[in-house]
Amino acid sequence: MTETPQFDIPKECKAGVIYDIGPSFTAKVEMVPVPEPGPDEVLIKLNATGICYSDVHYMLGDLDAPPMSFFNVRSPGHEGAGIVVKLGSNVKNFKLGDRAGVKPLLDTCGSCELCWSGRENYCQNVIHTGLMCTGTYQQYIVSPARYTTPIPEGIPDYVAAPIMCSASTMVRSLRDSELQPGDWALFPGGGGGVGIQGVQLAKAMGFRPVVIDTGAAKKELVLQMGAETFIDFKETPDVAAEAVRICDGVGPHGVFVTAPPAYKTAVELVGQRIGAKVMCIGLPPKGSGILGAEPGKYILRNLTIKGTLVGTMDDTRRALDYAKRGALKQVCEVYPIDRLPEAVNKLRRGEVAGRMVVDFNQ
Amino acid sequence: MTETPQFDIPKECKAGVIYDIGPSFTAKVEMVPVPEPGPDEVLIKLNATGICYSDVHYMLGDLDAPPMSFFNVRSPGHEGAGIVVKLGSNVKNFKLGDRAGVKPLLDTCGSCELCWSGRENYCQNVIHTGLMCTGTYQQYIVSPARYTTPIPEGIPDYVAAPIMCSASTMVRSLRDSELQPGDWALFPGGGGGVGIQGVQLAKAMGFRPVVIDTGAAKKELVLQMGAETFIDFKETPDVAAEAVRICDGVGPHGVFVTAPPAYKTAVELVGQRIGAKVMCIGLPPKGSGILGAEPGKYILRNLTIKGTLVGTMDDTRRALDYAKRGALKQVCEVYPIDRLPEAVNKLRRGEVAGRMVVDFNQ
Amino acid sequence: MTETPQFDIPKECKAGVIYDIGPSFTAKVEMVPVPEPGPDEVLIKLNATGICYSDVHYMLGDLDAPPMSFFNVRSPGHEGAGIVVKLGSNVKNFKLGDRAGVKPLLDTCGSCELCWSGRENYCQNVIHTGLMCTGTYQQYIVSPARYTTPIPEGIPDYVAAPIMCSASTMVRSLRDSELQPGDWALFPGGGGGVGIQGVQLAKAMGFRPVVIDTGAAKKELVLQMGAETFIDFKETPDVAAEAVRICDGVGPHGVFVTAPPAYKTAVELVGQRIGAKVMCIGLPPKGSGILGAEPGKYILRNLTIKGTLVGTMDDTRRALDYAKRGALKQVCEVYPIDRLPEAVNKLRRGEVAGRMVVDFNQ
Amino acid sequence: MTETPQFDIPKECKAGVIYDIGPSFTAKVEMVPVPEPGPDEVLIKLNATGICYSDVHYMLGDLDAPPMSFFNVRSPGHEGAGIVVKLGSNVKNFKLGDRAGVKPLLDTCGSCELCWSGRENYCQNVIHTGLMCTGTYQQYIVSPARYTTPIPEGIPDYVAAPIMCSASTMVRSLRDSELQPGDWALFPGGGGGVGIQGVQLAKAMGFRPVVIDTGAAKKELVLQMGAETFIDFKETPDVAAEAVRICDGVGPHGVFVTAPPAYKTAVELVGQRIGAKVMCIGLPPKGSGILGAEPGKYILRNLTIKGTLVGTMDDTRRALDYAKRGALKQVCEVYPIDRLPEAVNKLRRGEVAGRMVVDFNQ
Repeated sequence: MTETPQFDIPKECKAGVIYDIGPSFTAKVEMVPVPEPGPDEVLIKLNATGICYSDVHYMLGDLDAPPMSFFNVRSPGHEGAGIVVKLGSNVKNFKLGDRAGVKPLLDTCGSCELCWSGRENYCQNVIHTGLMCTGTYQQYIVSPARYTTPIPEGIPDYVAAPIMCSASTMVRSLRDSELQPGDWALFPGGGGGVGIQGVQLAKAMGFRPVVIDTGAAKKELVLQMGAETFIDFKETPDVAAEAVRICDGVGPHGVFVTAPPAYKTAVELVGQRIGAKVMCIGLPPKGSGILGAEPGKYILRNLTIKGTLVGTMDDTRRALDYAKRGALKQVCEVYPIDRLPEAVNKLRRGEVAGRMVVDFNQ
Repeated sequence: MTETPQFDIPKECKAGVIYDIGPSFTAKVEMVPVPEPGPDEVLIKLNATGICYSDVHYMLGDLDAPPMSFFNVRSPGHEGAGIVVKLGSNVKNFKLGDRAGVKPLLDTCGSCELCWSGRENYCQNVIHTGLMCTGTYQQYIVSPARYTTPIPEGIPDYVAAPIMCSASTMVRSLRDSELQPGDWALFPGGGGGVGIQGVQLAKAMGFRPVVIDTGAAKKELVLQMGAETFIDFKETPDVAAEAVRICDGVGPHGVFVTAPPAYKTAVELVGQRIGAKVMCIGLPPKGSGILGAEPGKYILRNLTIKGTLVGTMDDTRRALDYAKRGALKQVCEVYPIDRLPEAVNKLRRGEVAGRMVVDFNQ
Repeated sequence: MTETPQFDIPKECKAGVIYDIGPSFTAKVEMVPVPEPGPDEVLIKLNATGICYSDVHYMLGDLDAPPMSFFNVRSPGHEGAGIVVKLGSNVKNFKLGDRAGVKPLLDTCGSCELCWSGRENYCQNVIHTGLMCTGTYQQYIVSPARYTTPIPEGIPDYVAAPIMCSASTMVRSLRDSELQPGDWALFPGGGGGVGIQGVQLAKAMGFRPVVIDTGAAKKELVLQMGAETFIDFKETPDVAAEAVRICDGVGPHGVFVTAPPAYKTAVELVGQRIGAKVMCIGLPPKGSGILGAEPGKYILRNLTIKGTLVGTMDDTRRALDYAKRGALKQVCEVYPIDRLPEAVNKLRRGEVAGRMVVDFNQ
Repeated sequence: MTETPQFDIPKECKAGVIYDIGPSFTAKVEMVPVPEPGPDEVLIKLNATGICYSDVHYMLGDLDAPPMSFFNVRSPGHEGAGIVVKLGSNVKNFKLGDRAGVKPLLDTCGSCELCWSGRENYCQNVIHTGLMCTGTYQQYIVSPARYTTPIPEGIPDYVAAPIMCSASTMVRSLRDSELQPGDWALFPGGGGGVGIQGVQLAKAMGFRPVVIDTGAAKKELVLQMGAETFIDFKETPDVAAEAVRICDGVGPHGVFVTAPPAYKTAVELVGQRIGAKVMCIGLPPKGSGILGAEPGKYILRNLTIKGTLVGTMDDTRRALDYAKRGALKQVCEVYPIDRLPEAVNKLRRGEVAGRMVVDFNQ
């Protein structure tokens, strides 16, 4: 018989707390009270949190949406992995000691058309983690049991954390693209943190990933992660022509845009491929222009342009399953919790290549 | 035992023949030689041909493509219905007297990836009827037996002819939209010739058609043809808001653009519907602008913009099946063959509401 | 400003209560305590409950599963329609006075692979209404707010109630069949209560329903409800041949078995149709035999045999939407609550044609 | 400029010719006349032909269908790879020297509903190679240009030949199963010639193949070919339980039956997996029993049983593409043409593990 683990829950825990939300915000690590789970909630002790550029947007308050301060939230973060240390009285789907993850969507309503049809990532009554409620920069947080993600054995927390957001998002986009096994998947800017996960997932789904990016380091990385070919845009006179050449002389079946600057040439990159999909993933700053084509181009090429937001619970489950099987690795820098402010500043300055993860136990 | 019908095939037949292809073309009705079918072809005696605005483009030579004259073609037309009067020596899938239709694609290669996967409407080795070979303005024409459409009993020729092009095109778009039964299908400009067919087909597929157009006549027509509601854009201050209101207060699931001016507002018309599709059908003149949205809109709304060209053989079969069951009617003006030039001129001047059909037997 | 309605909630209410669960059960109408909703629940005052043959199975305890008595449940019923009269403290998706329906599944876990992917009808942690908890034979019942179905305006309660079960089940089967608009849908035994709903829904989805049953009354009914043809099996020497003849001389695309005796000939009914689906809906008594074919038949005909259980929340929403639009009508006998025992006995004796509904307000 | 190759075409060529078609047939290698291509045909000089158990059926005449002799055919064979050495006068899609393959279907009508919708493998006017016309046991054969398969560079002929039949068949089944990447694909008898190709293709499509078979040699082979696990049925007390254990403790998403004896336990092997598919591929002798389940099992498990026949042109193209990329290898014994009778006899005696291929140039 397994003994139920017992957890000593402290009164206070460390958290990355933001001051002066806005253009000149600062992040500090402080002790904050540990919250109490409601009857339908679990209390999670996080071991790791990802630091994502969306957090920076929330801290800067530069989105076309109410800022963190509007919700009285002082700790952002939406990629957390840890263990359940306390259960609300109604909770049945977790037990103490279970591994658990927190996603960009803390909760969905569970009772709308979108929630009912496996598209709850588009629920209009969603709670955005780290924006509308305390996020994963705080070590102990509460999460609704129904919408908390179980994390399987065999995946380290620092790997699981970023899967909650970016890998799940890529699973959604790749599935929504309706590409078939054997199809070419082109990733402009695919050497970045999200792109790298797209490349690995595309490979695992039987697609043929090709990356456009620059530099020997990125080349080596993406080829190791499963890309069939790397196009260095600084060394290639006609990138679109090269993409066509690689993809059977016709063009890729899907173009997955994780890096906003790539929207400018995304439509051109499909070449002559009939039925190609341009998939929008990376959110550009508002006002950065229209992505489209002449109607005749859509018609004569059976062209599709489509976007997807974050992943669903089912997408996150699938992303974790790929990681468990070794098909999805993370390239990340791990910081101890006390250096969280440094990590945030580095990301704000755009000096980060892969994903950044903070370890609460270091 | 059924007796095989015998046909007296004349040496010459009537045809609408185009002179001075270009901005000042003229159409005349003349006697031309009846062609001889090759071993894999049938000779069809047409009873009716549609007159489509694409024909006018071919006659004007104003497309970004080689004109009719480049192919030495003098009779356009790509919507024909008649009977098989002579069989090539290898033909097995038709017999004398069978009804047969001619489509915008006279033939496809049958041996490319697209032909192999039921998307032969995008075959890159296609022969465009009435552009690259003699079209249906000529009473007797040859057609490859394999790619000739059988017409079932119960559909008059003047109904079958326009089905070959516009109704088949609408079937393709509606199927490619992946709308579900019960979904809202919005047709801006849906009172026009192609739109009316879209409305009927959408209804027959279980969608809920709504039309945006103007005038009491169009209103009466589209409601009779199955539209649930008509939005008169001249009498409605905020058309997009009205479309949203009708469609559950959210917006339509699909917007089907048959009338090019509607591209301007098509994206706006989806309202707040998550996962809406904007389907491009009507080919606008080249250079008439970009159809698109900010990447964030695709992403935050799961928006899709997509185009489809003409229908496949399977789409044409389905369109004919709807007509046979009474679910697809044609609103058309029928002209006798000798007045074909008048009909062409009327269409060129943009004075036509529904479809125009020429009757070779009047 | 809308005033919130106030409801006087009695201490007791009427309920159909079952004694001697087993082969000789009896039903009585008694006064029972009105339950109190928990924080995540609503209290619903039902206006109508359907009486379904599954209830009889629960009362007889003749299924290969624990009986009602195992769960200390004394009132079955799983098709209820009424209004919300009290809200648990956490409830946000209903307000007092809202219409609400109760389904065969009172609740699902919301946190398993199946719940996450829009297939929560197969959740393995489900609570069966009227078996594992008090059912809709009791006028006031509690229901988890998240999984309670909103009922739109325009549908009477006695229509909405049976939609909760049988119409939703048919929507699921029809969607899962992947039939295309224009395809033939054959309903052996389609004159029965579930079949009639299948016929109407098939019609509304653009399929072409054909019914096999017997008698002039059923013939008139099913034709009125949208069936294209009726095959009277008592007057038709070779039913399968007749079905083939009607369905283009080939056979139906789908065979939907709601009446268990039809399993015997279901595979034969597909005729020569390539890719036909035999869809299992009606649960036969255990041990009534194998439904199948020689492997060669599956292979040479691309044959599919498949089953589906009840509908999902999304299916129920769709079924209600069809009813609201007038595309789904109910054929039912309505009994006042005090005659519930009589209605139950009649159903037990197999003397019921359509659906039976009990009105709590008569 | 590339010079067109010239081919000296002999008057006669070697062929495996069958005498006494029936239970005591014999195969000899003889010189036979080289045929002349018709205007729509190509003449192919084969370098390799597969020898498939279907050939043995054709030679034995033990199928429930007319035998080879009925069609005056003396050379079976339906898996051929070679080069085009002569073109019919109308042929445009091949040129002299192009690589070309011959499949189980020599030709389809190209003008039926099934041909029009990418399901031409089910065309009812098909010509079976090596049964209804001379097959690939003859070195020079004619093939309709439209339905001849181009073979890409980088695949040896002895690999391409069996792809024409068994690998293409597996692609069809795997696609028709609608499994998702990450799903478990179970192959009972998967160590056999067809199963091995299924395993590799399943892996390449992102599924997780598991094989049930016996012996250390098969174990090593299937693991090397991409199976995640091997269940030795001689060493495993409860094979179904072991399959469930491996597949997440639930069961596989698909069971692919290539070896007819596996039909007996195929349904049991799905375990508790909701929505599992049992896919029928291997044709058992007629009269070997029914594959099915109680209706309740289909319903309560959302179970599907389905069959597919050979692959389409599109499936064959995809299979060749996997081979070209190194994702599909052949395990085969290669015989020189003069030892074809020996190879046939060995297969007839059931002494063959992988695929058998005859090399016409040895």
